[in-house]
Amino acid sequence: MPCFRPLLPMALWLLATPALAVELIIPTEMEATAQRLMGLAQRENRAYALVKSLTTEVGPRLAGTEAEDRARQWAVGRLEELGFDNIRVEPFAVPLWLRGEERAEIVAPFPQPLEITALGGSTSTGPQGIQGEVAAFESLAALRQATRESLRGKIVFVNESMARSQDGSGYGRAVLKRLVTASLAEERGAVAALIRSVGTSSHRFAHTGNMSLGARAVGSKVPAAALSAPDADQLQRALDYGEPVVVKIVMTPRSRPLVTSGNVIGEIIGREAPQEIVLVGAHLDSWDLGTGAVDDGAGVGIVIAAAKVLMDHMPEMPRRTIRVVLFGSEEVGVVGARAYAERHAAQLGNHIIAAESDFGSGDIWRFDTRVAPASLGYVTAITEVLAPLGIAPGNNETRGGPDLRFLREAGVPIAGLLQDGHDYFDLHHTPDDTLDKIAPDALDQNVAAYAALLYLVADSDMVFR
Amino acid sequence: MPCFRPLLPMALWLLATPALAVELIIPTEMEATAQRLMGLAQRENRAYALVKSLTTEVGPRLAGTEAEDRARQWAVGRLEELGFDNIRVEPFAVPLWLRGEERAEIVAPFPQPLEITALGGSTSTGPQGIQGEVAAFESLAALRQATRESLRGKIVFVNESMARSQDGSGYGRAVLKRLVTASLAEERGAVAALIRSVGTSSHRFAHTGNMSLGARAVGSKVPAAALSAPDADQLQRALDYGEPVVVKIVMTPRSRPLVTSGNVIGEIIGREAPQEIVLVGAHLDSWDLGTGAVDDGAGVGIVIAAAKVLMDHMPEMPRRTIRVVLFGSEEVGVVGARAYAERHAAQLGNHIIAAESDFGSGDIWRFDTRVAPASLGYVTAITEVLAPLGIAPGNNETRGGPDLRFLREAGVPIAGLLQDGHDYFDLHHTPDDTLDKIAPDALDQNVAAYAALLYLVADSDMVFR
Repeated sequence: MPCFRPLLPMALWLLATPALAVELIIPTEMEATAQRLMGLAQRENRAYALVKSLTTEVGPRLAGTEAEDRARQWAVGRLEELGFDNIRVEPFAVPLWLRGEERAEIVAPFPQPLEITALGGSTSTGPQGIQGEVAAFESLAALRQATRESLRGKIVFVNESMARSQDGSGYGRAVLKRLVTASLAEERGAVAALIRSVGTSSHRFAHTGNMSLGARAVGSKVPAAALSAPDADQLQRALDYGEPVVVKIVMTPRSRPLVTSGNVIGEIIGREAPQEIVLVGAHLDSWDLGTGAVDDGAGVGIVIAAAKVLMDHMPEMPRRTIRVVLFGSEEVGVVGARAYAERHAAQLGNHIIAAESDFGSGDIWRFDTRVAPASLGYVTAITEVLAPLGIAPGNNETRGGPDLRFLREAGVPIAGLLQDGHDYFDLHHTPDDTLDKIAPDALDQNVAAYAALLYLVADSDMVFR
Repeated sequence: MPCFRPLLPMALWLLATPALAVELIIPTEMEATAQRLMGLAQRENRAYALVKSLTTEVGPRLAGTEAEDRARQWAVGRLEELGFDNIRVEPFAVPLWLRGEERAEIVAPFPQPLEITALGGSTSTGPQGIQGEVAAFESLAALRQATRESLRGKIVFVNESMARSQDGSGYGRAVLKRLVTASLAEERGAVAALIRSVGTSSHRFAHTGNMSLGARAVGSKVPAAALSAPDADQLQRALDYGEPVVVKIVMTPRSRPLVTSGNVIGEIIGREAPQEIVLVGAHLDSWDLGTGAVDDGAGVGIVIAAAKVLMDHMPEMPRRTIRVVLFGSEEVGVVGARAYAERHAAQLGNHIIAAESDFGSGDIWRFDTRVAPASLGYVTAITEVLAPLGIAPGNNETRGGPDLRFLREAGVPIAGLLQDGHDYFDLHHTPDDTLDKIAPDALDQNVAAYAALLYLVADSDMVFR
């Protein structure tokens, strides 16, 4: 296959007809190949078949559990079947947190059950539970203003809502509530914390998620749970009567210091520069409430299927190595991502670019990057190739997927194919994250975009840093 | 107020301008009053305020529980506040069935939890649970064909789906599955029964409901539960691999023979014929999983608010008595409806017509009846008055709401204001039946239609039998 040369001979410049900007950077033949791969990618439904297989045969696969181990075995088996090279599991240690019983109720003045779920890393209330009067706050800011004595013995309730948006930007603000409410409550003397679910679902699903974004342990000692949006509304209505509202919470999660998790890796070895790595990732673990279809079975299916398009439909392998990384233990603090960055620290200079699919099953609508300004012309050329898929130019400030954090911090260039996330937070981290929420052909456009991106980067010698 | 006289003086016939059919039967002044009441009804949002109050202050109110008793106290209090006459609770006995723990899992070949809920009246598996290989059937018809030995020790799974429709007609067929699967399974030697939820929700909510439509006890001894639609799909996918699928079910419901329930009644006493009863009903009890907002808090709000429109906005009370009946223990076999029919048996000949609101919060789109053919002209005239609300003529074969069954069988004429039920079975009998599913003004059109109907029947001397 033709590959990009930064300095094209003048003769090729003259031959380019018509002489559009894109053809100055990506030769016509290369663009034609990309378009052919994009077309083929959309005929195969392989990503859906992979998500279906993973979510049916393994189902929920919480970090550090035996189910996550079965997911690794599943991934190794699929990568072998599909003909990937250098398939391996890179193990690492992760703290284990397991959900126990969980229930809550309004004790007074209007006795009735509430739908809750423990936040990841929460302590236990003990089987006898914790009971207290609710101290409600409209926002985190309001909670921060509370003085210590005002919350002594109380159960804090933060009822801040999350905004729905195409790019999921509401999550950044909303997730703060999940991360810090328990600590703020504890500092002010409260005995437990409740938050309105971080999510946009109007259904009766509480949204779990870790209280720490990093591998460090959760600092708070007070138990913390999310209420479903309808239950948060109900609790607020009860509070609106102006009388003290007493709630009881029973949650019995347990944890163990260190168990084994792992990243699963498979490659397509580059034909000319095998040491140069184009990394495409997703995460294999999921929360325990659903079957992890949109988070992140979809991503697992998309990135494996995209690499397989190149393997199947190019006469020879791309110049550079394509490395598919299925990260473990993302949900409990991107532990697999840190382990990967540490293990491969010496190799990160050879990571040409990294991309991760971890935002559900919606269409990709924008191409963002975080690359050296000198390579933005090539980014624009890639975006032109992706345009027939409905993908628009983006910005150069992407953070990439969550598992790219340590690579980004180490200077690895990042590509971000941004999916439409309007409904992502209706499902994400809830029991409703199941296969039926993915339309069988919904992933094909994603596979096409990743296949084109992988090809245009791995079969070039463009440098992005 | 003017009231209908079957034989209009010729002079009135001549005065009618233009001489449309509706004016031959319902005088213009009476129609104008009906339209005025319909307009006023839509400005008050009283039905929503009532549903909000009931679902917040009481929440779930399962038949025979202390919560149902609190619902009766709530109803008496609201009827008193609103100025109804003859407010009373008519007690009756009902068997109590209480949900316990409930969980299920695929044990092999793909271990993972399944979302279930016990069907009302189910026996317990005991805390140790029941485990067995799944015998799956696409339909009830297929299960009926199974021979006894083929299901010995098995767990039956009937995966028949329910169709979505405007009039809820899919429920009639689907509910059969809930009623008879456990008995059919037991007869064939199975140890437990699972059904795909009777409902149209694509979310991860299992749909409960009684296994008996009457007051008689559930016949089957084997435990029975519903799977949410996504979990039924998941179990089917596991079965599609062609290997034996083993499931474990733990459910610990318990029951007690007889506890107290009751119907709550309030009236507007008729000014000329107080012994003639125009009955409008809804049911006060709900299933335990949600807060009973659409089933049947909405109906409770609608019928109280409709009667109150007449009380507030007519210069004098209607000719006949309007009786609001809030039935208890509907969900567990229309026990309150039977108690009402038995207690008032001698009075049923004076029941002019009966209507019940028990189909959620959608707009009314059709007016059905079950009346003597001689009164159909008046029905047509009522329908013409209701037309500005978007209500179309229906048929004369309505069965009315579930609590009208014994009245209908005793010959009481029935009016049926049919609501749009497209989304009703997404919510009905699930945890998702909560207040937020009702738009604040969604009930006003219903209140307007009931107010007009009550007025046009209670302020006339038309006989419908």
